[in-house]
Amino acid sequence: MVEVKGDRPFIYLDHAATSWPKPAAVIEAVREAMEHDSANPGRGSHAMAVRASRILFDTRKSLAKLLAVKNPNDIAFALNTSMALNTVIKGFLKPGDHVIATAIEHNSVRRPLEYLKKLGIIDVTYVEPDERGQLDAKQVGLAFRPNTKLAVVSHSSNLLGSILPVADIGELTRRNGVKLLVDAAQTAGIMDIDVEGMGIDFLAFPGHKGLLGPQGTGGLYIHPDVDLEPLLHGGTGSQSESIEQPSVRPDRYEAGTQNTAGISGLGAGVKYVLHETVQKIHNKEWALTQNIMEGLGALKNVRLLGPELGQPRTGIVSFVIDGADPSEIGFILDQHYNIAVRTGFHCTPLAHETAGTLETGAVRASVGCFTTSQEVEAFVEAVKEIVQHYS
Amino acid sequence: MVEVKGDRPFIYLDHAATSWPKPAAVIEAVREAMEHDSANPGRGSHAMAVRASRILFDTRKSLAKLLAVKNPNDIAFALNTSMALNTVIKGFLKPGDHVIATAIEHNSVRRPLEYLKKLGIIDVTYVEPDERGQLDAKQVGLAFRPNTKLAVVSHSSNLLGSILPVADIGELTRRNGVKLLVDAAQTAGIMDIDVEGMGIDFLAFPGHKGLLGPQGTGGLYIHPDVDLEPLLHGGTGSQSESIEQPSVRPDRYEAGTQNTAGISGLGAGVKYVLHETVQKIHNKEWALTQNIMEGLGALKNVRLLGPELGQPRTGIVSFVIDGADPSEIGFILDQHYNIAVRTGFHCTPLAHETAGTLETGAVRASVGCFTTSQEVEAFVEAVKEIVQHYS
Repeated sequence: MVEVKGDRPFIYLDHAATSWPKPAAVIEAVREAMEHDSANPGRGSHAMAVRASRILFDTRKSLAKLLAVKNPNDIAFALNTSMALNTVIKGFLKPGDHVIATAIEHNSVRRPLEYLKKLGIIDVTYVEPDERGQLDAKQVGLAFRPNTKLAVVSHSSNLLGSILPVADIGELTRRNGVKLLVDAAQTAGIMDIDVEGMGIDFLAFPGHKGLLGPQGTGGLYIHPDVDLEPLLHGGTGSQSESIEQPSVRPDRYEAGTQNTAGISGLGAGVKYVLHETVQKIHNKEWALTQNIMEGLGALKNVRLLGPELGQPRTGIVSFVIDGADPSEIGFILDQHYNIAVRTGFHCTPLAHETAGTLETGAVRASVGCFTTSQEVEAFVEAVKEIVQHYS
Repeated sequence: MVEVKGDRPFIYLDHAATSWPKPAAVIEAVREAMEHDSANPGRGSHAMAVRASRILFDTRKSLAKLLAVKNPNDIAFALNTSMALNTVIKGFLKPGDHVIATAIEHNSVRRPLEYLKKLGIIDVTYVEPDERGQLDAKQVGLAFRPNTKLAVVSHSSNLLGSILPVADIGELTRRNGVKLLVDAAQTAGIMDIDVEGMGIDFLAFPGHKGLLGPQGTGGLYIHPDVDLEPLLHGGTGSQSESIEQPSVRPDRYEAGTQNTAGISGLGAGVKYVLHETVQKIHNKEWALTQNIMEGLGALKNVRLLGPELGQPRTGIVSFVIDGADPSEIGFILDQHYNIAVRTGFHCTPLAHETAGTLETGAVRASVGCFTTSQEVEAFVEAVKEIVQHYS
């Protein structure tokens, strides 16, 4: 149970890790699917299995609408964004390929790339954003080599909240015959995404952050003209007699039993986002970050990371306090103020190098579509009180 | 909603694909976790993230108890059994390795093996069980080569219900320095499994079948003395500053956000099984299969697949009706009798070859721990009626 510590209600500011709470419709969709429709989708010869398949298709359709994907079957479900990213990095790249990534990529991009690099399969160039996490698309253009096959770009830094110019990069990659993989961990459901319009060949996204679905869900869009070797080979309920993975989508990329109830919840989450509209959610979150930045920016020993006040960003505000260990700040916020933030390195050491916080890490507050301005105010007041002890 | 067709209540006999219904405690655990504890486990600096981590650890502990695993951290969660099997097959085998598998393996084993074989990385020998799916461990022994590194054995055939002598095979593999991967898709929660005692190095299991958890859950036990390259490289919330996947378990094998709510449900499912006891569940399911076999065995144009009456088997009874297309039988059972079975090839073409049903496929009825003898009786009566049309 969520505890109320003294008279302080619980304030959740860790939306960049996972969104909470979920809309009631999401929890209800999960329960309903578990109770009534959770046969094995695509593998049955009976009505309940057909209903399970329909849940998957309905969610795919909603996702397609949200991401401007023409054919819902070009979207495959995954356990999480890491699985989607690994699918592309390990299934698309061949020996001798060169990859361009940015220096603010999450470990879910960097570690698989470094793994393939260590095996001598690929070479990687990390393009450096400025210390606020801003990147000019031209820098990606300068990194092209004749053997460049893939560019991997985080749509928004999970530490700095900066937004990368995906559409501009997509124009460059398309013109140069390079494929573009976008990590939408921080933007799916929070920023407009149009895979065709932005030149995105692969889009990896979580179900449990901006899309408001349950954990254990996520997905991968694969452009219809591109083929990938699947990460998982296995049963698909189709072409069972073949020893090879079927080529038909989405089966090709969905071996084994899918998370029917979770995907049902994800469908409800996406519908919620479609109804609210991405634009409205983004604007709300942006306004809240500005409130946080104004509040914390007034404190002389607080350094805010990422884009400046008034500039575009996602719902993330990371900061350091002079002379204070971020994990201690997180501990005090949790224990004394009942406020949940994240501290440490956020799986993105390169972004910390960029921001000059590699030694210490940072405190990250991240808002979601249910965060209120009262909560943000209480958070700012809490940090103000804490900061006095370190000045 | 589950429909009642006329006066016929819904009868679910597709437990080998996924168990249904789930215990109320499982659904409640999922809801409770989604509502109150679904922060990002292992990645937070706050109380809710700690609670999420505890859910994962509690489920791991229950699984360890069930499978006689000494250290719960040797169990990693996965999306499904296919993911667990792919992790071992792709992460353990090296160029030049030889693998022994059986001819009744599911496509989740056969397809990744055939994929590596096609790439010229490994060589595979498929040991042939008899037409009832029975295998003598000695046959595995006869297949050993100097370069044999891995034996992959399904604990029970998902088509025939036959039980393979895992402990005997484990004795042979251990003696020969070969590692043993067991696919427990049909046995976890339904047959006693003791990984140490049975000489199992890797155990892949689903969360949503005999363990009664939600879909989207499963896991992999990895013997503490064996190291694998992870299938997913990515963020683990630990050692964030390292470009390599951490070596500490279970983090090494759990990149990205885990399915906290699903794993909470899985924990409740495993607790249910531990309370009922595997032995009791197995005995009950076995008795039900015998009832089906007696009923259908009396029909002259029905051929039962798998072990004979009175012999050990899991809760699966597959059959063919002379002159009838199995998918037609499944359709009639579904539409007219409101009974859910599975028809077709069940992702296991080699087992059909073994049973002589590769041309037609088969009808598979599979019982679970909530199946009643009345349901089984109604199913037998339904088949009796149907069969008259084909005699």
